[in-house]
Amino acid sequence: MTETNHSSQPREIAAIDLGSNSFHMVVARIVGQSLQIVSRHKQRVHLASGLDKQQNLDQAAINRGLSCLAMFAERLQGFEPENVRIAATYTLRQAQNAHVFLQRAERILPFPIEIIPGTEEARLIYLGVAHTQPDKGKKLIIDIGGGSTELVIGEEFDTHILYSKHMGCVSYNKQFFANGKLSHKNIAAAQLAARQKLESIATKYLDIGWDKTLGSSGTIKAIREVLIAQGHSDGVITSARLKRLLDDITAFKHQDDLDLPGLSEDRKPVFAAGVAILSAIFEALDIQDMHFSSGALREGLLYEMEQRFRHSDIRVRTATAMAKQYNIDTAQAKRVQTTAVDIYNQIDTQPGVKKTELSTLLSWGALLHEVGLSISYPGFHRHSAYLLRYSTMPGFNLEQQTVLSTLVRFQRKALKLAEMPELTIYKRKHLYPLIRTLRLAVVFNGQRSDEPLPKLKVSANNEHWQLTLPDGWTKENKLLAADLKTEQEYWHKAGWELDVNELD
Amino acid sequence: MTETNHSSQPREIAAIDLGSNSFHMVVARIVGQSLQIVSRHKQRVHLASGLDKQQNLDQAAINRGLSCLAMFAERLQGFEPENVRIAATYTLRQAQNAHVFLQRAERILPFPIEIIPGTEEARLIYLGVAHTQPDKGKKLIIDIGGGSTELVIGEEFDTHILYSKHMGCVSYNKQFFANGKLSHKNIAAAQLAARQKLESIATKYLDIGWDKTLGSSGTIKAIREVLIAQGHSDGVITSARLKRLLDDITAFKHQDDLDLPGLSEDRKPVFAAGVAILSAIFEALDIQDMHFSSGALREGLLYEMEQRFRHSDIRVRTATAMAKQYNIDTAQAKRVQTTAVDIYNQIDTQPGVKKTELSTLLSWGALLHEVGLSISYPGFHRHSAYLLRYSTMPGFNLEQQTVLSTLVRFQRKALKLAEMPELTIYKRKHLYPLIRTLRLAVVFNGQRSDEPLPKLKVSANNEHWQLTLPDGWTKENKLLAADLKTEQEYWHKAGWELDVNELD
Repeated sequence: MTETNHSSQPREIAAIDLGSNSFHMVVARIVGQSLQIVSRHKQRVHLASGLDKQQNLDQAAINRGLSCLAMFAERLQGFEPENVRIAATYTLRQAQNAHVFLQRAERILPFPIEIIPGTEEARLIYLGVAHTQPDKGKKLIIDIGGGSTELVIGEEFDTHILYSKHMGCVSYNKQFFANGKLSHKNIAAAQLAARQKLESIATKYLDIGWDKTLGSSGTIKAIREVLIAQGHSDGVITSARLKRLLDDITAFKHQDDLDLPGLSEDRKPVFAAGVAILSAIFEALDIQDMHFSSGALREGLLYEMEQRFRHSDIRVRTATAMAKQYNIDTAQAKRVQTTAVDIYNQIDTQPGVKKTELSTLLSWGALLHEVGLSISYPGFHRHSAYLLRYSTMPGFNLEQQTVLSTLVRFQRKALKLAEMPELTIYKRKHLYPLIRTLRLAVVFNGQRSDEPLPKLKVSANNEHWQLTLPDGWTKENKLLAADLKTEQEYWHKAGWELDVNELD
Repeated sequence: MTETNHSSQPREIAAIDLGSNSFHMVVARIVGQSLQIVSRHKQRVHLASGLDKQQNLDQAAINRGLSCLAMFAERLQGFEPENVRIAATYTLRQAQNAHVFLQRAERILPFPIEIIPGTEEARLIYLGVAHTQPDKGKKLIIDIGGGSTELVIGEEFDTHILYSKHMGCVSYNKQFFANGKLSHKNIAAAQLAARQKLESIATKYLDIGWDKTLGSSGTIKAIREVLIAQGHSDGVITSARLKRLLDDITAFKHQDDLDLPGLSEDRKPVFAAGVAILSAIFEALDIQDMHFSSGALREGLLYEMEQRFRHSDIRVRTATAMAKQYNIDTAQAKRVQTTAVDIYNQIDTQPGVKKTELSTLLSWGALLHEVGLSISYPGFHRHSAYLLRYSTMPGFNLEQQTVLSTLVRFQRKALKLAEMPELTIYKRKHLYPLIRTLRLAVVFNGQRSDEPLPKLKVSANNEHWQLTLPDGWTKENKLLAADLKTEQEYWHKAGWELDVNELD
């Protein structure tokens, strides 16, 4: 493959979507202000069907996934990491042994894989559709994947409501059509289960309302293709057509015999489950007709990569909303942020670590470190960690939320590092410098005052840090000096060292 | 003792405060509209000094506490449970084996002991002082106990800011005067530690400001008595007087020799620590003078018992504030509450259980069961449980918060009853009927609609419940019928049974 970051050539970017049913890659070229799709790749890997009862991915499924990634890797040779974004969805969210897959994937494909929350998946799908279908008015977008279904109402580039539900064509096929048998009874059971999933949210969607219904991704695309092959050349999915399609399906007794015009061989095993889910959604939300949109998750990833500003916009909006809901003392948050960034900039990058990304996370962590105070003061660092780990935070992926949560968890008090969670993209040791930095920033701003801080000089040698303060400073700041001493003890107990000196 | 609930006699109520240093009991008579203190009892039990490094109370401390309770029990013979309120503070909050103490206490004193959070302690102290010192303007109230210090600013009967800090005369004595040695160095170390504790909150108090400073409880009372004996007959504690008092203390080399006029024998071992803490507070908050208030925690308990309406007022305020902060769907919350109360009223009380209290908690739990939705939808019952367990909730004690948290934790999904927390006043089995009730109420309101529900008839026979619905109802409500079936499976897996019948 040719180098793509050659200055005379337009920049190429790629997005990969590791779905429960298929892996997709799309490569695009940035030409002037617009995005030109260069190539699309797809491989059916049936990842979800390899999940056992203990939610572990079996070896066969892992190997199917990895061999697909190896193929993608060839296409991506020479790409810079900043030009590739890879998002994994439902099945890797669920898999207990996702880290095994990710570790092996890392050796094949040298780009980080982000496991994204369902709501983030929904937001990105909406973004992908919104970019490819720029109609006016409110849009309802439905995306039925292998393991989850996303339902979003939005307008232009903003979403009004979004949910990701644990139902998909692969998982429902496994649950309701285990033997491959097609019957009215099996379909009715799948429909009823889907209706139960939608029950608690349906009225919310109906209350908000929408002007146009769009469907994206494989399941809905396959339904559309069958309808077209049956003579409905407009390709519109209507509730009447869905009902007839269900009758057509049950005319066959087994999935292997499913012989519908326009239906591909590899869609057959999950088609009935997909149609059952979609028909349940039509009923629950009283949908009359749905159009297909070619945009989906990977297009959302692409567009967001192209317009990085959107991404940071969304994070700013997320952080601002959290700061407001949890009544953060913004002045103090900014003080700690300023000190933290100042210290972190003085520290050498660890080899192999993307300093910019970590620095950004440190900065967000500093802004949100006191979010848990609104729950209660005792142990508030744990409350902050809980909120940053479990809250819906548009613009952040699961790993980033875990990093933020870990940073704020260790902002103060004893360093019980054994409590650090498992990470997928980063290693624990990558976070240690960030934790040390945030803690020092918190200590130095302990008095929550606008008095300027002394110039702090920090030098880091692995676990051994040196802090240099102005001459005579500790004598004049007994309280802070005592806090620093307590902090030194915490470090020492964790196997770290903090030397504090004064300038001569 | 004589029966006190005899109609011709005024009602007697009692409040007990199980502190880290002393246990106190106060008995009062309700005469017309006012409260007449009948008797006060106090015993120094030094509970906090029995906490070992693993935070376990040793046998000797447990026995000291229990023999004091046995004495109180004599005075309380014939009292109705609703006329006695017992609150335990810092040391029992901290003790890992608090349940051992509570179990043995239950056999001696047949009234429930509530372990209250630090903020609730602060609120009740404020209430006690506010009732006994009804001056106008903002009051700062400081209460230095054996294990914790409460700092509150309030006005009339409302608090503006309150914190409970982990520092007290018993714990600081252990930490900084372990050998009983009195020295400038030990006192300075205790002061510095106290300043560190106050550092992050001091500016908040100074920003709010106050008109009058009051101190309550043993430590401050003892300081006042020494000052009076020294000739300061106004009994006002000033920063200059505190400084001189510290010099007086260090003139003695050992606590055993501490010979100050007005200082009682049993206050000697914790006096220096108490004065060090108070002087640090004076410095941190720039206090000039402080008056003593005889009201404290137990008076707060008493006044709140007398005016039950206040108590429920505070709970309503707490629930309303949470509903607002977390954007609860109030209409849905009220629907679930109505259904839950309707079902619970049909069920027989278990022997030995105060149905009213549990029914009230069920009602609050139903109102707040969706509070966790604001964090994120997936697993929101767990988020609700987290918030109800750890939030500052004025008007609720720790056990009540644990009950609320447990109810909402089990409102939906699999009944992993092994995850139920330890309780102190209630038994797990007391909560099962509440959990079953809340779950049914949630299922029946799953569609979040204002359509009236059918008349539900419930009869309970331990784990075996019977639900009777109107004739033909399940046929017309397939979705709800499916939800009920799922619910029956959850019950079955937990060893419970739910029969669903229709009226003939």
